[in-house]
Amino acid sequence: MITEKLFIVDLQPVGRRAEVRPGQTLLEAAQSAGVELVSICGGIGVCDGCRVRLAAGQLTPLSLEEEMAFAGDELAAGYRLACQASPLSDVTIDIPPESLTTLQRLQIEGAQVEVEPAPAVIGLDLQLEPPSLDDLRSDSARLKDSLRGRLPYHTLSLGYPLLSGLSPQLRQQKWALRAVMRGDEGIAALPPGERLVGLAVDVGTTKLASYLIDLESGATLAKTGAMNPQISYGEDVVSRIAYANNRPHEGPGILHNRLLETLNDMIGEMCVQASLRRSTIVDAVVVGNTAMHHFFAGLPVAQLGASPYVPAVSEALDLPAHLLGLDIAPGANVHLPPNIAGYVGSDHVAMLLATRIWESGGAALALDIGTNTEISLAPGKKAGWPAGRLLSSSCASGPAFEGAHIHDGMRAAPGAVEKVQIDGDQVRVYTIHDQPAVGICGSGILDAIAQMQLAGIIDQRGVFDRSHPQVRVSDSRREFVLVPASESGHGRDVCVTRQDVNEIQLAKGAIRAAIEIMLAEAGLQAADLDQVIVAGAFGTYINLKSAIQVGMLPPLPLGRFSQVGNAAGAGARQMLVSLQQRELAGEIVRRVDYLELSAHRDFTTQFARALILGDIS
Amino acid sequence: MITEKLFIVDLQPVGRRAEVRPGQTLLEAAQSAGVELVSICGGIGVCDGCRVRLAAGQLTPLSLEEEMAFAGDELAAGYRLACQASPLSDVTIDIPPESLTTLQRLQIEGAQVEVEPAPAVIGLDLQLEPPSLDDLRSDSARLKDSLRGRLPYHTLSLGYPLLSGLSPQLRQQKWALRAVMRGDEGIAALPPGERLVGLAVDVGTTKLASYLIDLESGATLAKTGAMNPQISYGEDVVSRIAYANNRPHEGPGILHNRLLETLNDMIGEMCVQASLRRSTIVDAVVVGNTAMHHFFAGLPVAQLGASPYVPAVSEALDLPAHLLGLDIAPGANVHLPPNIAGYVGSDHVAMLLATRIWESGGAALALDIGTNTEISLAPGKKAGWPAGRLLSSSCASGPAFEGAHIHDGMRAAPGAVEKVQIDGDQVRVYTIHDQPAVGICGSGILDAIAQMQLAGIIDQRGVFDRSHPQVRVSDSRREFVLVPASESGHGRDVCVTRQDVNEIQLAKGAIRAAIEIMLAEAGLQAADLDQVIVAGAFGTYINLKSAIQVGMLPPLPLGRFSQVGNAAGAGARQMLVSLQQRELAGEIVRRVDYLELSAHRDFTTQFARALILGDIS
Repeated sequence: MITEKLFIVDLQPVGRRAEVRPGQTLLEAAQSAGVELVSICGGIGVCDGCRVRLAAGQLTPLSLEEEMAFAGDELAAGYRLACQASPLSDVTIDIPPESLTTLQRLQIEGAQVEVEPAPAVIGLDLQLEPPSLDDLRSDSARLKDSLRGRLPYHTLSLGYPLLSGLSPQLRQQKWALRAVMRGDEGIAALPPGERLVGLAVDVGTTKLASYLIDLESGATLAKTGAMNPQISYGEDVVSRIAYANNRPHEGPGILHNRLLETLNDMIGEMCVQASLRRSTIVDAVVVGNTAMHHFFAGLPVAQLGASPYVPAVSEALDLPAHLLGLDIAPGANVHLPPNIAGYVGSDHVAMLLATRIWESGGAALALDIGTNTEISLAPGKKAGWPAGRLLSSSCASGPAFEGAHIHDGMRAAPGAVEKVQIDGDQVRVYTIHDQPAVGICGSGILDAIAQMQLAGIIDQRGVFDRSHPQVRVSDSRREFVLVPASESGHGRDVCVTRQDVNEIQLAKGAIRAAIEIMLAEAGLQAADLDQVIVAGAFGTYINLKSAIQVGMLPPLPLGRFSQVGNAAGAGARQMLVSLQQRELAGEIVRRVDYLELSAHRDFTTQFARALILGDIS
Repeated sequence: MITEKLFIVDLQPVGRRAEVRPGQTLLEAAQSAGVELVSICGGIGVCDGCRVRLAAGQLTPLSLEEEMAFAGDELAAGYRLACQASPLSDVTIDIPPESLTTLQRLQIEGAQVEVEPAPAVIGLDLQLEPPSLDDLRSDSARLKDSLRGRLPYHTLSLGYPLLSGLSPQLRQQKWALRAVMRGDEGIAALPPGERLVGLAVDVGTTKLASYLIDLESGATLAKTGAMNPQISYGEDVVSRIAYANNRPHEGPGILHNRLLETLNDMIGEMCVQASLRRSTIVDAVVVGNTAMHHFFAGLPVAQLGASPYVPAVSEALDLPAHLLGLDIAPGANVHLPPNIAGYVGSDHVAMLLATRIWESGGAALALDIGTNTEISLAPGKKAGWPAGRLLSSSCASGPAFEGAHIHDGMRAAPGAVEKVQIDGDQVRVYTIHDQPAVGICGSGILDAIAQMQLAGIIDQRGVFDRSHPQVRVSDSRREFVLVPASESGHGRDVCVTRQDVNEIQLAKGAIRAAIEIMLAEAGLQAADLDQVIVAGAFGTYINLKSAIQVGMLPPLPLGRFSQVGNAAGAGARQMLVSLQQRELAGEIVRRVDYLELSAHRDFTTQFARALILGDIS
């Protein structure tokens, strides 16, 4: 009897493993491991949905379908279609986020935490002697005396939240406890041996991502995502600041409270997931753009809404959780890392921390694309800049990528067109959850416009080709039918209009203009860039080829790009488990030269150039 | 024409001054200065109400009335009747509190603050540059940069209450402000030049005394007193702890909240008095017995109600005012000086700080008499104790001195008998505000019993002389009629019963037993005491001769006693204006040997001995 050889397939970054027989595809491997890859065509190599990248090992040779699906640099980078490729050895496969049919499209994954835990808060198990007529020390003095032998501090203090419950707790727990210490301050008393948990939160303008982390091991115990409930008060940062300013008495409080309510619900949900109590969450790190940071912290925002757009606070803050209304251990602090400027917040700092774009020494660019796009450039050695020095900036890229201001736009929810392929008169769309199409989300509209341009439906200026058979005029509005009413989920056509194209031109033009000005400031050209990191929810799902096609990103080999998911959340988790990472975040901010684009002499010119669809270089 | 010589009369400690012609009495001098002395007899030298002490200068020789009114040692100490004595030179006169017809009998005077101001909080007036496109520093960074040049700290932090309002305030105040600093932490931003105010509070079981102090000069800007509203939940500490324990969910919160409501009202009242805003009150010191300390701070009290009666917290605490619900500047801290033991609290520490009983080097005793009586002994050199070393203890002296558990007892309010003289069958009483008698307050019952004993109405054991014409039996209860119904304010007799005498025996017996045991522990006898300081509301009003007569205090020359009023409040004010005084308070506590009387082998014997009315030595 011949034992059949099995190959091991490591699926990253999800961290799952499968064993396959020779001839089985990577798609089958993923399915057997419970990892759902996008597969519209059913595995026949035409939908381009199951793109993966070979990181190590050997696969069967390229199929014809694969040679058609990928550009030369993509093939060079190791990209394959999972339905076409089979292992010839044990292999490691990288799955880009867009190839996963994630149940929830809220971005809470991002890079893994890979720092040595050195948390701000530690636990010490103690057994105290009970008081007697011969030993009348107060409960607090008794605890301090016991701590003194175990810690290197001259003076120790016990915080009010610990003190206010200590006496009954010591008696209930028979004088045994886990003392939770933040430096020389006791912040909580827990039952002996209780696990210490930290909370990391990325407060996005649209989405919230939360994680519970074991502070000793760094392991993620639970995570969840939710929409930012402030959306009801304004879709973007500017309209929420206006809302707060127009209602100075109650507005800021409403925005703060709604956010905190939702965060507290998320914490509750995660506590259920991980079977733990809120009182064990003894530390927190919260990142967000500067406006979200201010709303979360209850800081005034009026000055963020008018030139010169200065933050109330830029330095790192450590605020008592109870002061902010965050329902975790009452003695916990919330660490808020520093902001760089009014429109470059701590989420961008966290992203820089997680991606370390300066470390390679090459020229590297990192973007967080959203309603507001934050960009940092590490010019690196070749530009002659000092090591570790960064240039940061931001631009208003509008809500089009969130699906707003788009005729049939919608958020990334079931039924949203998120991927488009136009081949002659054949239009193929892929929707979230494979539901009948009801609208177009950000990555879908970018794809559609890139494909429309390639198909000659629109020209470089975004003008529709009136003679094109699929272009029609409705209510004196030119539009392209992406999904006809007969195939849509709501019985109406799903279209791309001239106005939609215009919105994307404005958005991508602002981003590209910012990139060009920053490169020029550093004495670089786009081709000098060794690395371009695209972070954030939207950046994770876009088709890079489409982004290059419309001219949002410079035309570089695809291998120089990486889509890193929620790197801000990853940076927050790193700061949660390591004080060194908090210090490094402060250092990053000190190394940044902030470039205010609205004041830059070249912005208008560059912006006008960058409105053109296609390569502007 | 001959110019008549005028003498200057300095009236202390009230700090008023009068000019009198030769022949005018001290009583007339006081009246002309607006200082109201007790004068029942109308200035004919028989009521003994206008007792004063000559501190400097020369008076007319003693009158016959004065020789009858005072004991030899009182005369030696300079005691006079103001209605009998006239200046022969400029004089300084000390007026003991009991000789003043104070409108309010809440004790908020006490010793004057005489420390060099070195407050925990200071103000710095700053003018900042507004931000511009060339200077995009955040508001917080801008403020910090400006502070850095003015302060000796390497790092500076700005507290949340300051930050949360800073941005609009800077813009309203045209970038000028007074930064309020507590060490290296900014705690508030006020308009430039604003006066910085501190709050000192003495939380008594029965009464609250509050002061607003100018932190720079130490001057008292306003003061007020009120009843402790917790009285509705229990007259004494023990019953309030029981109330809290029996309602673990809401009880402690109710007691804390009622206290804070009243304190906040008092602060409001003082702000009106001094025309200032609560937001300028940037520091606070609160003292009280250990239970009041715990209720104020929201600390658990259950363990105070059962042996071995240990405090939750003994060390000094600095707690954010807003955390406790104290309505002053949101960035202010409340300093709570240390407690010595479960029944010797920070009010006693404050009293020791204000009176400095260890400083003379002699043997000195200090008592704070109330429902619970705290006693400290500085044994001094003659006992061979180390310099500055103290012995502290406490005893339960019951609520009789507050007028409770006394048949016709009442608090020190208008119509309360507070002074009694019995001369044969002539009974003279003095009531508060000279109102018709409706009851007897603490000092009155002590006086009555001393006088009844002197008149032979009761014997040393407190047994009534059945044959005495003024002793009657009512409802099989023996009683002495102090004020007949015809002369009282409510048409009923005001009486002293056998049970009343018993209550006072128990109360004074506990105090005297404590004194004797402490003296024995230190190797001293009562006669060794160079100084006895009687502090607190009740201690201020008692007739020392009566207290000695019944045996509550040891029989020493009256000149060795001082009645210092609310020394706890004075100590609180000293700690408010001076960090050095807070340190000294900590040092006092470290120098104390606490003696737990309930565990002392001699307590029962000494207590039994001390029940006897009269000299037990």
